[in-house]
Amino acid sequence: MTEPAPEFSLIARHFRPLAGPGALGLLDDAALLTPPPGQQLVLAADAMVAGVHFLADDPPETIGRKLLRVNLSDLAAMGAAPLGYLMTIALTPGTDEGWLAGFTAGLAADQAEFGLQVLGGDTVSTPGPLSLSLTILGHAPPGAALTRAGARPGDDLWVSGRIGDGWLGLRAARGEIADPDGALARRYRLPEPRLALGLALRGLARACMDVSDGLLQDAGHLARAGGCAVAVEAARIPVSDVTAPIAALASGGDDYELLFAAAPEDRAAVEAAGLAARTPVTRLGRFTAGAPHVSLRDATGRDITPAKLGWSHL
Amino acid sequence: MTEPAPEFSLIARHFRPLAGPGALGLLDDAALLTPPPGQQLVLAADAMVAGVHFLADDPPETIGRKLLRVNLSDLAAMGAAPLGYLMTIALTPGTDEGWLAGFTAGLAADQAEFGLQVLGGDTVSTPGPLSLSLTILGHAPPGAALTRAGARPGDDLWVSGRIGDGWLGLRAARGEIADPDGALARRYRLPEPRLALGLALRGLARACMDVSDGLLQDAGHLARAGGCAVAVEAARIPVSDVTAPIAALASGGDDYELLFAAAPEDRAAVEAAGLAARTPVTRLGRFTAGAPHVSLRDATGRDITPAKLGWSHL
Repeated sequence: MTEPAPEFSLIARHFRPLAGPGALGLLDDAALLTPPPGQQLVLAADAMVAGVHFLADDPPETIGRKLLRVNLSDLAAMGAAPLGYLMTIALTPGTDEGWLAGFTAGLAADQAEFGLQVLGGDTVSTPGPLSLSLTILGHAPPGAALTRAGARPGDDLWVSGRIGDGWLGLRAARGEIADPDGALARRYRLPEPRLALGLALRGLARACMDVSDGLLQDAGHLARAGGCAVAVEAARIPVSDVTAPIAALASGGDDYELLFAAAPEDRAAVEAAGLAARTPVTRLGRFTAGAPHVSLRDATGRDITPAKLGWSHL
Repeated sequence: MTEPAPEFSLIARHFRPLAGPGALGLLDDAALLTPPPGQQLVLAADAMVAGVHFLADDPPETIGRKLLRVNLSDLAAMGAAPLGYLMTIALTPGTDEGWLAGFTAGLAADQAEFGLQVLGGDTVSTPGPLSLSLTILGHAPPGAALTRAGARPGDDLWVSGRIGDGWLGLRAARGEIADPDGALARRYRLPEPRLALGLALRGLARACMDVSDGLLQDAGHLARAGGCAVAVEAARIPVSDVTAPIAALASGGDDYELLFAAAPEDRAAVEAAGLAARTPVTRLGRFTAGAPHVSLRDATGRDITPAKLGWSHL
């Protein structure tokens, strides 16, 4: 047993350089982490499957990063700062080392950019498509975390960045639409977690979530959690392609923008938070009294809500 | 949008009753957890794929429990107490509600038995086999967690329970060997995490891990982490079937017993810890000076180490 089994060599070579000090070199059964004193932990987990959540021929540098960024986006939505993550990978047999090297190089770049390190994980083999799962740990002062519940009638509905670029980016990555500089495909593969904005919205947003399954469907989640209705003005939705059908952009997935409620008297404060976080914010609707419901309105106030509000996995 | 998408109804119906108070009803982007003051967090993640780590036709009641128990075993190996877990599930299309009900009923039983609750997760679909990933959180006083490093020449090698039952159980579950009362198949499907023993070994074991990939391979991990060699006496390995080849039992996987090093002067204390934890413990070898190496010895001291020490996924 002088030579460890191949599985352990692979992990050692590619993942160990990514490990934080508590990860015990990824050699142990578990990792140790001393939580920041007096803070609450914020925890999220997401999974991705090749051909479902990313394209099997996406560059390996982007695949792990996308999952990491999707989880960072969950922390952003809670107003939390990142601490570390654990990742499990089900690899197809014969995955070559070049692929693994690219995969971990992408993760290393994002670890540096977002200031966190891998704490542990597991590598297994699968006869099915490449599958990844990631659990992220973050922290926030007790009571400071933003949640989906809290929107009230009269509150404004806000969103960060642009809506629909994830959906356009998927079509671009598939070669279905033009993408001369690759910006749209890149947006699909590497969403931008809005961590700075999430921190700036602590104490300001009454409810917050990230848009992962379509703007309208997710606005519906905020409405239901707040026990009210919400109307979205189609003309206010920030989009990059005004020729694409607004219903498609507003129900496509993979935006990973923050969608949040704030009191009308806090409009200037929300604008200031966006500037401080260098993140565009747009007011695009309003919560109203009534049964939980989301509607999309055109400039004349007409209801143009599509039948399909977003994306469901099952 | 009065009716949520099917994915969310499924999660609501089956998983929400399992959620702890910090899980925000599994309705939010992330869960909140206040860590026990002054404690270190202990974190582990494992993945399982149908047909690789369990049989696709295993009873649904046992599948999630097996993964939870495998992760609890990692906590046991670190001498940690459980806090909670996050689980992601990649379901094959058309998974019926009866299966999900059985799956979550099994998890509910283990949550009650081991005193923890689900904090979050994700449900996605896969064209491949059913795949699960679980991250577990536990805690231990600072500096108290057991690790793989620390065995010294002269230390005894100990193991809990019996070795080889996981391997025999897999063969029984496949119908390859007789299993009149189903005890072996049950052992394969539901390993017993040795949490009480792990706690009792704090301050006593110099190094500890759980046996997941074969006794000999894992003893090699302890030797390498301690910078010494280890010799296992074949006749001392606690087995349930003395007619099975000892090399197969000692290199089969899925035992989930604790394998640990302790000083010879602590033999009585280790026996007492086993009694207190109601867990059998057996002294089966010794660490010696020398390059990292594991050997299996027969009663005459002859080296009968098999070529294959354990199980590798890649």
